[in-house]
Amino acid sequence: MRLVTYRASTGPRIGVVLPDDRVHDVRAGTLEEIVGDAAALDGAREAADAASTSLDLPRIDELELLPPVRPGKLLCIGYNYRGHVPDGEDPTANDPAYPDVFVKTANVLIGPNDPVELPQVEADVDYEGEIALVIGRRAKNVTLDAALDHVAGYTLFDDVTARDWQRHGSQFTLGKSFDTFGPLGPWLVTADEIADPQDLVVEVERDGVITARQSTATMIFPMAFLVHHLSQVMTLEPGDVISTGTPQKLPAAAEAHRPLADGDAVTVRVAGLGELTTRFTTTTEDAR
Amino acid sequence: MRLVTYRASTGPRIGVVLPDDRVHDVRAGTLEEIVGDAAALDGAREAADAASTSLDLPRIDELELLPPVRPGKLLCIGYNYRGHVPDGEDPTANDPAYPDVFVKTANVLIGPNDPVELPQVEADVDYEGEIALVIGRRAKNVTLDAALDHVAGYTLFDDVTARDWQRHGSQFTLGKSFDTFGPLGPWLVTADEIADPQDLVVEVERDGVITARQSTATMIFPMAFLVHHLSQVMTLEPGDVISTGTPQKLPAAAEAHRPLADGDAVTVRVAGLGELTTRFTTTTEDAR
Repeated sequence: MRLVTYRASTGPRIGVVLPDDRVHDVRAGTLEEIVGDAAALDGAREAADAASTSLDLPRIDELELLPPVRPGKLLCIGYNYRGHVPDGEDPTANDPAYPDVFVKTANVLIGPNDPVELPQVEADVDYEGEIALVIGRRAKNVTLDAALDHVAGYTLFDDVTARDWQRHGSQFTLGKSFDTFGPLGPWLVTADEIADPQDLVVEVERDGVITARQSTATMIFPMAFLVHHLSQVMTLEPGDVISTGTPQKLPAAAEAHRPLADGDAVTVRVAGLGELTTRFTTTTEDAR
Repeated sequence: MRLVTYRASTGPRIGVVLPDDRVHDVRAGTLEEIVGDAAALDGAREAADAASTSLDLPRIDELELLPPVRPGKLLCIGYNYRGHVPDGEDPTANDPAYPDVFVKTANVLIGPNDPVELPQVEADVDYEGEIALVIGRRAKNVTLDAALDHVAGYTLFDDVTARDWQRHGSQFTLGKSFDTFGPLGPWLVTADEIADPQDLVVEVERDGVITARQSTATMIFPMAFLVHHLSQVMTLEPGDVISTGTPQKLPAAAEAHRPLADGDAVTVRVAGLGELTTRFTTTTEDAR
């Protein structure tokens, strides 16, 4: 099941995206309110199945999509895809002992069709296309085996980053947390639809050119481990997001890199999860 | 004016702490809802002044204090107090070019009388006593001169840290974000009461021994600069908290350091802001 949160005149609403990309309205509210509620999800599924022939429903491209969830915590993972090594070498030789975790602040979050506003201050802006998992059931000290039971589903995320600001200190925070630097969506795909989250291919495209393509099989810390590990530290709540790291840029793309500029577009694409295309614009907002 | 948020049977309420430490109730809600509202603050002040002889009000130690605000963003600053240098040497010689900023996640936040629960996993837990500023008016791209106009006031914070986890990767996040690792309070002191935030002495005490004592005059990045700098990146919202860094431990205390254990207590004290004493306990909560 694909679930969206969208804006209506009366406030945000939750919808199920039908196979023909029409949206069956479920209820008022935002998705983090129901991702932990199995009965509510079952009800949404049944109602959507019953409605799936209705052609009087709005098409998804007619709706103003909001981020599928509004996470209380938006956690990101640094280096988490192994690079290519020559035959005979151990691909795990450079694996770190622990995942490197950082936070993006709430002001970054935008919907899947919203543009990223390039900063007014000088900033060398880059993209990172990622799979984001969404917590469904509260998780504290969960075992590795039980970890994925706490995942409601998956969506896509662009961990937009100002590389120069990221390097201003030891901590990435400021380079990662400019307003609008977090497009999320387009929808949440419930976990039951993904047979194996470690067998997905993440593809990232900039201005029509594939710049990264890598399987989640090459992840250093699989998603179950991330949930297990983070839950030893913090109580993960329904709607919390863990963005699982970006595949390595292809050598040609890394070499050709230039900072994102007004009019550029980046797409993150994963079969089964859909695609998230983000435009980058020069903000016209004045200093307040 | 000293403002608190406290728990009542009907939900959280806001109060003004009178000179005799009795609390005048202002209204339902939490402080971040009114810190940006000058008229509401003036109203609270006038009502409290009129009430200041009432001995039928509860004493502050009879109330269950909540964190004075529940910040949408809890931002912390790394190394921000200069060390002592011998006479004739330049104390600014080791100043970094930019403040090092990190985030603590929402699950850390506890009230001023709540205990920190030591993690169930192995963790080398330390304390950092700090002045935290609270944003009153939304701030984006504010000038250095105007920055303090956006500050509602000041409170105290213990940036509790698991040193071993902090060093697991390049990013501090996990070591900083265990559940309960963020006692905040006891109250918000409105900015009008602090003649010069760069002329305050922060004193930290562990089990009766002073372990740090340093003036905010020795800060590398003054509070106005922090607000200005952060506002170039992110829109700061009313109730957001910037904890401004911890003074350096005195050499004897640094040498005598041992991880915090069940029954320990740490106090942060600043004349004019009050004191925040935190107990550390071994959690009895079972894995879920």
